Amino acid sequence: MIRVLPVEGLPEVTAGDDLGAVIADAVPLEDGDVVCVAHKIVSKAEGRVVELAGIEPSERARELAGEAGDPRRLEVVLREAVRIVRSRPPLVIAETRQRLVCASAGVDASNAPLPDTVVLLPEDPDASAARLRAALEERTARRVGVVITDTFGRPWRLGIANVAIGASGIEVLRDLRGVRDPAGYELHATVVALADEVAAAAELVMGKTERIPVAVVRGLDATGEGTGQDLVMPAELDLFR
Amino acid sequence: MIRVLPVEGLPEVTAGDDLGAVIADAVPLEDGDVVCVAHKIVSKAEGRVVELAGIEPSERARELAGEAGDPRRLEVVLREAVRIVRSRPPLVIAETRQRLVCASAGVDASNAPLPDTVVLLPEDPDASAARLRAALEERTARRVGVVITDTFGRPWRLGIANVAIGASGIEVLRDLRGVRDPAGYELHATVVALADEVAAAAELVMGKTERIPVAVVRGLDATGEGTGQDLVMPAELDLFR
Repeated sequence: MIRVLPVEGLPEVTAGDDLGAVIADAVPLEDGDVVCVAHKIVSKAEGRVVELAGIEPSERARELAGEAGDPRRLEVVLREAVRIVRSRPPLVIAETRQRLVCASAGVDASNAPLPDTVVLLPEDPDASAARLRAALEERTARRVGVVITDTFGRPWRLGIANVAIGASGIEVLRDLRGVRDPAGYELHATVVALADEVAAAAELVMGKTERIPVAVVRGLDATGEGTGQDLVMPAELDLFR
Repeated sequence: MIRVLPVEGLPEVTAGDDLGAVIADAVPLEDGDVVCVAHKIVSKAEGRVVELAGIEPSERARELAGEAGDPRRLEVVLREAVRIVRSRPPLVIAETRQRLVCASAGVDASNAPLPDTVVLLPEDPDASAARLRAALEERTARRVGVVITDTFGRPWRLGIANVAIGASGIEVLRDLRGVRDPAGYELHATVVALADEVAAAAELVMGKTERIPVAVVRGLDATGEGTGQDLVMPAELDLFR
């Protein structure tokens, strides 16, 4: 059995906060726990917040914003993006500097600390996960995994789903190739995106508006050394570039 | 807290089996449980299994198979598909007659009952889910949801993740539009694909090779009337057609 526990009662996070201390104080961790953290509080703790007032939009940002969008927000999106995958103003799907493909290059106004500010993705979500894991393990003397999450849209499917954008101490991809099914058939093309499924499970208790940005997935047995970057499809395999 | 319980000890399912009886006998259900079922056993119970020996591949199937693929399998894929989205022999991403976009139009050789057979998607996964839910509710006198799942690949991301292809009795999309976050910012574009996240959570205990095709997600509080088709992006909104 797996348990997904919401971590309740966390204080509002601001720049410079010690997330490891905040989380370790809020929940008693056990060996093997996977601590899932919505990137928004990681970004806030790391100061990855931009005030739109100081942003001068480029011509391209104005185009992408169209009539309905805020060209200053689109300017921030362009600065976070290395490639625009699709756009229909004011909607932009972009590849970020972290090689993630998502809406608005991960730039988000919801749950921002102040009006007229936007929150960016962490500069390096895997490094953030590794730091947080080290802090949690030092404070709790438990061996844990950390997954940093964001909710992404998906082609062809409605609704957003939580995925892993950074990870540390967890088996991110579970490779079943070479394993045989009960009929003796060798399973092919069966690499499971375990960390994405963990992120999705965590979101079931997070609730975007309920200020529960952290959940613990317990009972998984998935200690490992994967990273969020392991989930990024290499360009040469990508049928959708 | 949410619990994800594997349903162990299920017998091998064959055509004509009463899945409701099999599952109700294997696990004591509670009100509000969401019973997640890998489509493979639904398809087997419904006789959606094809013997490749009788299949005459078309020229197009031979093209799509390339050197490495089985043209008979690709012929079955073509019969299940309404549109080929991408192909690189022997890999095909197709839209199925059920409007799902996935590898091989959902035609799969792994966990097939016999060598040289393939398993198709259920003809109508939402109808299958509704029937199974009715059978479970009648047998157990509990109010439950049912999600029929398959593991899909995703553009830009490595690994497959479990998603909901059919559903009954569950809130499939959770619409947070109009809800305000703690800072008072109205959440936009925030419709959560709850049933896909439930499917992903279920897969954490299913294990493709361990003959655990059923899991129960308990504690979710997501009774509703959504269907798997609710998760299909309408063509006019789809930036990736």
